[in-house]
Amino acid sequence: MRDAYTEQLDSVFDDLAGICRRVETAVESATTALMTGDPTIAQEVISADAEIDRMREEVEETCFSLLSLQQPVAGDLRTVVAALRMVSELERMGDLSVHVAKIARLRVPDVAVPEQVRPTVARMAQVARTMVGQVSTVITSRDVEAAIALGKADEEMDQLRRTSFSELLGDDWHHGVEAAVDIALLGRYYERIADHAVSIANRVIFVVTGHNPSTVDA
Amino acid sequence: MRDAYTEQLDSVFDDLAGICRRVETAVESATTALMTGDPTIAQEVISADAEIDRMREEVEETCFSLLSLQQPVAGDLRTVVAALRMVSELERMGDLSVHVAKIARLRVPDVAVPEQVRPTVARMAQVARTMVGQVSTVITSRDVEAAIALGKADEEMDQLRRTSFSELLGDDWHHGVEAAVDIALLGRYYERIADHAVSIANRVIFVVTGHNPSTVDA
Repeated sequence: MRDAYTEQLDSVFDDLAGICRRVETAVESATTALMTGDPTIAQEVISADAEIDRMREEVEETCFSLLSLQQPVAGDLRTVVAALRMVSELERMGDLSVHVAKIARLRVPDVAVPEQVRPTVARMAQVARTMVGQVSTVITSRDVEAAIALGKADEEMDQLRRTSFSELLGDDWHHGVEAAVDIALLGRYYERIADHAVSIANRVIFVVTGHNPSTVDA
Repeated sequence: MRDAYTEQLDSVFDDLAGICRRVETAVESATTALMTGDPTIAQEVISADAEIDRMREEVEETCFSLLSLQQPVAGDLRTVVAALRMVSELERMGDLSVHVAKIARLRVPDVAVPEQVRPTVARMAQVARTMVGQVSTVITSRDVEAAIALGKADEEMDQLRRTSFSELLGDDWHHGVEAAVDIALLGRYYERIADHAVSIANRVIFVVTGHNPSTVDA
């Protein structure tokens, strides 16, 4: 009975890592759509989100079945509840990728990101995507050191967000209000993806060590 | 034993409603700070958020203790898990109110919202605040009809968001990039508060009926 339980719990974490890899693809493809103005890729990201939602439902059902049938306590209980929260956050990260893709699609045949801010936006996207990739490794390995390191990458995201505001609000911004609003919202979406990555890493730390690192959530 | 359980579960829902009322105050005060440019009120919203976080931790501990000690199954299990999710969403709504307050504070001694878009922003804030107020009633009463009605208010929020974009991107927008970026982000924050209100109402529907209304989450 207990072995079946451990197996089921491991399979939940495998599923979470699998969803996380799909989110990584979503972030990457949404960014490609954004930078190239490709409506087909944007549409693929939007359509693929339904599969992430479906996978989330599956994980939720497994977690409920673990809670009902195995009635875990202490550490095991906290692990199952952590998994339920992680899967909600992964789903949100998928939704945020869809938001990026929708901005890309809205501006076709133009490209939403003017040349002047491309380096900053591209770097934000890269940081977000790398963090999502690291989170799937952290989920699989339950490597606490790697999970702690992830929190540091978030500092670069905060800095990039400030840089992008300086660019938008500087005297040499000549791309008008629409592009500025797009960039501000895109920055928000990538920042939130990064926040969720840190939050999931913190939940893995909690599952492994039993201690909650001070939550980074703003 | 069973009676103690029911009592504890009721007290969790009372606590959730209590947090929700604090969130309602946060949304209201953040909006006042925004519309008047009052840094003291903005700071109060930012400081008060720690209490919402503390209350969330208490609810989480009670839920864990219910899960560990009472090992609920079926409907009771789903109710406790729903409570854990609701409290996360309430905390996020508090964070979003803090974001509104921070924009207000950043623009002092000016006011972030230009006259031209004040009606739209004020209405967004009012819709968000009303929805939060209705959610605390829904949590207390577990009134499914009222919970369903809440989803309809969200449609007005979507419409207001579109209106605000038309205003920002119209030819008669003369308030520059900074104000436009502020309004776009404020719109996003109020919209997310409304989204969470709908999501919590849906969780109440689920707790009462056992059926999940199609989740509204974008």
